[in-house]
Amino acid sequence: MTIQDRRTRRSGGRSGNARRDSARAIEQMSWRIPLNPDRPIDPLDADGVAAVHDAAMRVLEEIGIEFLNDEAHAYLREAGCTIEGQNVRMDRDWVREMIAKVPSEFTITPRNPDRAVRLGGKHMAFVNVSSPPNVMDMDRGWRPGDMESFRDLLKFTQYFNCIHVAGGYPVEPVDVHASIRHLDCLYEKLTLTDKVVHAYSLGHEREVYTNINSSSPRTHDWPMLDGAMRFARRGQPVVVTPFTLAGAMAPVTMTGAVVQSLAEGLAAIALFQHIRPGLPCVLGTFTSNVDMKSGAPAFGTPEYVRATQMTGQMARFYGLPLRASNACAANAPDGQAMWESSNSLWAAATGGVNLVYHAAGWLEGGLIASYEKFVMDCELLQQMQRYFESEITATTDAALAVDAIREVGPNGHFFGTQHTQDRYQTAFYSPFLSDWRNYEAWSEAGSVWTAERANKTWKAILAEYTPPPIDEGIREELAAFVARRKSEGGAPTDF
Amino acid sequence: MTIQDRRTRRSGGRSGNARRDSARAIEQMSWRIPLNPDRPIDPLDADGVAAVHDAAMRVLEEIGIEFLNDEAHAYLREAGCTIEGQNVRMDRDWVREMIAKVPSEFTITPRNPDRAVRLGGKHMAFVNVSSPPNVMDMDRGWRPGDMESFRDLLKFTQYFNCIHVAGGYPVEPVDVHASIRHLDCLYEKLTLTDKVVHAYSLGHEREVYTNINSSSPRTHDWPMLDGAMRFARRGQPVVVTPFTLAGAMAPVTMTGAVVQSLAEGLAAIALFQHIRPGLPCVLGTFTSNVDMKSGAPAFGTPEYVRATQMTGQMARFYGLPLRASNACAANAPDGQAMWESSNSLWAAATGGVNLVYHAAGWLEGGLIASYEKFVMDCELLQQMQRYFESEITATTDAALAVDAIREVGPNGHFFGTQHTQDRYQTAFYSPFLSDWRNYEAWSEAGSVWTAERANKTWKAILAEYTPPPIDEGIREELAAFVARRKSEGGAPTDF
Repeated sequence: MTIQDRRTRRSGGRSGNARRDSARAIEQMSWRIPLNPDRPIDPLDADGVAAVHDAAMRVLEEIGIEFLNDEAHAYLREAGCTIEGQNVRMDRDWVREMIAKVPSEFTITPRNPDRAVRLGGKHMAFVNVSSPPNVMDMDRGWRPGDMESFRDLLKFTQYFNCIHVAGGYPVEPVDVHASIRHLDCLYEKLTLTDKVVHAYSLGHEREVYTNINSSSPRTHDWPMLDGAMRFARRGQPVVVTPFTLAGAMAPVTMTGAVVQSLAEGLAAIALFQHIRPGLPCVLGTFTSNVDMKSGAPAFGTPEYVRATQMTGQMARFYGLPLRASNACAANAPDGQAMWESSNSLWAAATGGVNLVYHAAGWLEGGLIASYEKFVMDCELLQQMQRYFESEITATTDAALAVDAIREVGPNGHFFGTQHTQDRYQTAFYSPFLSDWRNYEAWSEAGSVWTAERANKTWKAILAEYTPPPIDEGIREELAAFVARRKSEGGAPTDF
Repeated sequence: MTIQDRRTRRSGGRSGNARRDSARAIEQMSWRIPLNPDRPIDPLDADGVAAVHDAAMRVLEEIGIEFLNDEAHAYLREAGCTIEGQNVRMDRDWVREMIAKVPSEFTITPRNPDRAVRLGGKHMAFVNVSSPPNVMDMDRGWRPGDMESFRDLLKFTQYFNCIHVAGGYPVEPVDVHASIRHLDCLYEKLTLTDKVVHAYSLGHEREVYTNINSSSPRTHDWPMLDGAMRFARRGQPVVVTPFTLAGAMAPVTMTGAVVQSLAEGLAAIALFQHIRPGLPCVLGTFTSNVDMKSGAPAFGTPEYVRATQMTGQMARFYGLPLRASNACAANAPDGQAMWESSNSLWAAATGGVNLVYHAAGWLEGGLIASYEKFVMDCELLQQMQRYFESEITATTDAALAVDAIREVGPNGHFFGTQHTQDRYQTAFYSPFLSDWRNYEAWSEAGSVWTAERANKTWKAILAEYTPPPIDEGIREELAAFVARRKSEGGAPTDF
């Protein structure tokens, strides 16, 4: 038997599904929360860190942040902050005191405890695409999001072991009226996946978390503050992610945009720590630049990478877990999409990011959820997980392989050695989407480009998908809750 | 005048061509040899470095390297090495003594002194694709290389300021008989470009360099040793690049493949230092893994990235400049091609690589030179050059921008501030190929994917290309040299 006759098999490990080797859509990596072993890239020296910190503190002390929420004012007044109108100024010592209460690591456990996610430290977790209004695939093209695509993208989220968290809506199902959309979506999220879920609003799940974005510059709006303070009081984790596009809502200098982002983020986290000391919080970064020709946001740019790394350096200075994104500006799942996404993922890896939002499926600066891009991104995420595995750089005698080198003569080949035979099945990362055949074999098979291969893959995944097991009594209770709230009219809307 | 009314202008800086703003195919970055400011990623700890070094030295001391060249044996016998048949064993102290003579940095100056390339230290230079037998573009598809495509790819090499070195043949022109091919190619290289050239054989250029590959495992062949020793005696730089595919010509463990690559590379460099102490030499790495399902080489894999980083760490341990590649296995300029290339470039950046071969244009593991991929890769190279610029992470008061943050109110926008107006033209990287428009504008413009945009770009570049100036007397002398050597029958071949 030659090596070519055998096929590499990796354990699939999809919890809740029986092992069905013969019928898998893809052979994927087993579930794990990867640990990033590398020392992060620090673009700032010690003086630079001190300067960025001082600037962020000056923004909080001298200029202030607008909190558009009276309840937040009450808390902040109680804490001794200076409030004029909506503007809140904070003393840097108090901010540092509050920030120091944030746990450096914590765990969120979903309804399937095997899918618990550890955040902070060296951990790195991947979240599906969240919140695009539109959806795209190569068969049906661009269209507004709907409940069918919402469900499909949740199925991908559940299927891929390299997606650890079901974030916000993977696409906005605009065919469901906004007054009851959150109820239908909640039901789908909690039945189609058993992973950690991001909640936009309150649910009765065991453990959820939320993310809020500031209205940069320097403003936290009422609804997000209201929701986040409710989360804080219940001890549910909160991610605070300012949306600071340099040259638009933030200074045109990347360091300045980072300063503003830090000030906005730290101000909100300080508030939540005052409300609930020790609340798990994550500092988010969404600092990128705009295209100065058009004003359009750009992502995965050189400036984006450095901003992510600088924010990572400051997050470590403050002892805070960090969230970033797998972002791109491209409108199709093509070369540009992948180099921008690759830059964003390398920014996350070299920046020491703990939670990567939009890790799979995002296009057009977050306005499109793409079926094919979701699949392509998961190939990149698996590769990064493999990159983090310490066995690649092991220096045991067996790994150093001097005896194997001795055994193979100068005209020899390593395929046949026992050293290779003992290891070849797991020695290398095995892709599910990359095509490594030579040109002749690839062209004889139809010259299929990556996005077209991804198109075939997601159809196979949808055909294979089975929902995770759920206690029927809990499912019925959840369905009854949704039906009752819908019958009561859902949430108020003005349309 | 609004920002959108203006267009960002960067200095083009193509030496030898008059500035023609109105007719440029693209607006590209000016020429520079980038300096990589980041601390490299070190996957090995101190014990790991010592273990890899010891293993490489054991290969040289106990197992030996085959030198298929009697003249090399004479030199190595003179140096005190142990020679049995073709096998040469070397004492580790002598190897270290020889390696220590290699300059840590040096400069190669081509006929245009403005295009001098500094190698070693923090410098990072990019070389065009070298040596594929086949060529591809989206109009004509796949075909064997010919003189027309050879010339076209050299024109791209000259045109792009982010390509610093004209490496080996950018494609093999198989329509020219092998006996005289090197003469025609030499003439084209020296007239179509004025950059540093890699020479496969001897020429009369002012300053050239060469690269040799070992025949792994553990063998240096006659012709490459012969050519490299001629280079060494003349003081021309030599790059030594073992071709160690883990699981094929090297151990299946990546650390073992690195050990073998180091042993092969250091052995040849030690020989050249014995011949010419202080000869500029560069350690090359081409360690990747094969696809264990097919035996096909894979590139830009997680294992490739770690092997590059480990070799970088060892190159710094030995004080040697390092060469790696922008490699991929993909057969089309698509998503896979760009994520594999992006991984390879990030491996080079985080590995502290000084010379990146095949930086633009390579597909199918080096068997295809692609017109579109050349253009797409140059977009990535420019982005990496921008990423290295220290101004992005400056922490001056102006960069920290506290006053600009103070000036812009909570509902304000930074577009209109003086801080932005003073900087917006050069604040951000300006791509020539990325399309950052929103979906509506992009689709109205025809929904053009990246590779199709690159197809348009290379046609515009060929239309714009003008050869660099050359002294007519020198050109005539070169043409006469080529004509004379062709009339003498060129190099001997057996066909």
